[in-house]
Amino acid sequence: MREFNEHNITEAVLERYQNTPDPRLKQIMYSLVRHLHDFVRDVEPTFEEWSNAIAYLTRTGKMCSDTRQEFILLSDTLGVSMLVDVLNHRVPKGATETTVLGPFYVQNPPDLPLGADISQGVEGQPLYIEGSVSADGRPVANAEIDVWHSDSEGFYDVQRPELQEANLRARFHSDSGGRFHFWTIMPTMYPIPTDGPVGEMLEATARHPYRPAHVHFMISAEGCESLTTHVFVKDGPYLDSDAVFAVKESLIREFEQEPPGTAPDGRKMDVPWRRLRFDFGLTQRAQSAPAA
Amino acid sequence: MREFNEHNITEAVLERYQNTPDPRLKQIMYSLVRHLHDFVRDVEPTFEEWSNAIAYLTRTGKMCSDTRQEFILLSDTLGVSMLVDVLNHRVPKGATETTVLGPFYVQNPPDLPLGADISQGVEGQPLYIEGSVSADGRPVANAEIDVWHSDSEGFYDVQRPELQEANLRARFHSDSGGRFHFWTIMPTMYPIPTDGPVGEMLEATARHPYRPAHVHFMISAEGCESLTTHVFVKDGPYLDSDAVFAVKESLIREFEQEPPGTAPDGRKMDVPWRRLRFDFGLTQRAQSAPAA
Repeated sequence: MREFNEHNITEAVLERYQNTPDPRLKQIMYSLVRHLHDFVRDVEPTFEEWSNAIAYLTRTGKMCSDTRQEFILLSDTLGVSMLVDVLNHRVPKGATETTVLGPFYVQNPPDLPLGADISQGVEGQPLYIEGSVSADGRPVANAEIDVWHSDSEGFYDVQRPELQEANLRARFHSDSGGRFHFWTIMPTMYPIPTDGPVGEMLEATARHPYRPAHVHFMISAEGCESLTTHVFVKDGPYLDSDAVFAVKESLIREFEQEPPGTAPDGRKMDVPWRRLRFDFGLTQRAQSAPAA
Repeated sequence: MREFNEHNITEAVLERYQNTPDPRLKQIMYSLVRHLHDFVRDVEPTFEEWSNAIAYLTRTGKMCSDTRQEFILLSDTLGVSMLVDVLNHRVPKGATETTVLGPFYVQNPPDLPLGADISQGVEGQPLYIEGSVSADGRPVANAEIDVWHSDSEGFYDVQRPELQEANLRARFHSDSGGRFHFWTIMPTMYPIPTDGPVGEMLEATARHPYRPAHVHFMISAEGCESLTTHVFVKDGPYLDSDAVFAVKESLIREFEQEPPGTAPDGRKMDVPWRRLRFDFGLTQRAQSAPAA
């Protein structure tokens, strides 16, 4: 076929994908072409608008680096990341709910012993985090617990070019009883980075860029599904209008106010501090059925 | 709202765009969110598939440079560019049909006098191209005629890092009678670049990357719509399965075989050469209505 109109071109493009060897990829490409063409037919972009879209996607790719993932941020702000999350994570009873990864996760954070202070002296109200990891009600020993969060000004370490080392970011392992604890400082609400294409989009559409205060966790253990989630600080601003739609009720916790005195690990505190307890439930990975 | 399921999240995201000041942008964002979410609900990507899509888009952005536009190539190979073309260019009688820009256009090509040879001695069968530019049947003098095409091995100049200067690429201006002519060499069919993400996609889906032989033209003149098109070589391979869906019957021409002898501009040809004539019709730009 050589003469396409706005209707038959979609069938012509689909035809080219008919020999895709992998059936899942074929299904994805068919769906992508159909939905993408429907979108284009719906908005009828001018050549200039199409050209602006090409330039926007190009700038978004150029903005990505080892410490900045602008396409994840775009997926987050368009609600795509949370949609993928809810489609995949219909969690069983007792398991912790999931939420978005976000653009600031860094592979292989520093491996620290339980009880360590990941703030490395950076300013902020001290926060003691303790909890446990279990699966089906049984403690999970040696679970890998990655934690990362913003500082008291709302920045992640990777957003501070002056920092030479990881900060407010670490990997812990649960003890034999599945327990963990460590020190850090209170996270704060913050704007997602607005100096790139996602910031342009938010500004042009009069959307605010703020996220409510939270601590990220990624927990993995043998035989369990990996858990990517946040714990949100109760009563903070933006819980009802998170720029990336990531808040779930079950993930909001009181970060308790504690007076000066002795902390649970014996540390002497001469200033008021905060305390969070969160018990994480993992989902056991499906076993292959035993041979009949 | 804090608890999203796979259905209500779309409405929640749309709500955030309700204060978009520009009504056209608001319409585009609403349509984008609806179609993007429909696509995601349809394929239910796993976290790994989502993550692969993010990485794919990122690689596509990174591949773009001053001389390579991988997102245009992706738009072309998904049939989006031609869909945008047909939606925008329902041309009036007498006007030349449009087709895709392609990824190899370079701004401000060398400005050459009529009759120049743009091949600069590069190997290939000599080709004499002549024609005219008119609008509503009247010749258009001083029209800007950008031309670019592949060499006899199927490469554009920007794909040959050893070339220091533009080659098979120039800007001409029509004479007082709207006419133009110049020398070049025959273009050939070629694969679109397959060393990037678009190549990965074509390979994974068992699609061939070939385009039938063609010469690109972009013609602009005062008071007229700019015309972006190709002229395709009749009887060549891939006219029926162009990798970017850009062929239109009205753009296919015989590139006549000519014996050695004297060419129309008096040049003595001691080898067989080819000759293309194409008369371009521009579309007059709509005038503002005179005051009543």
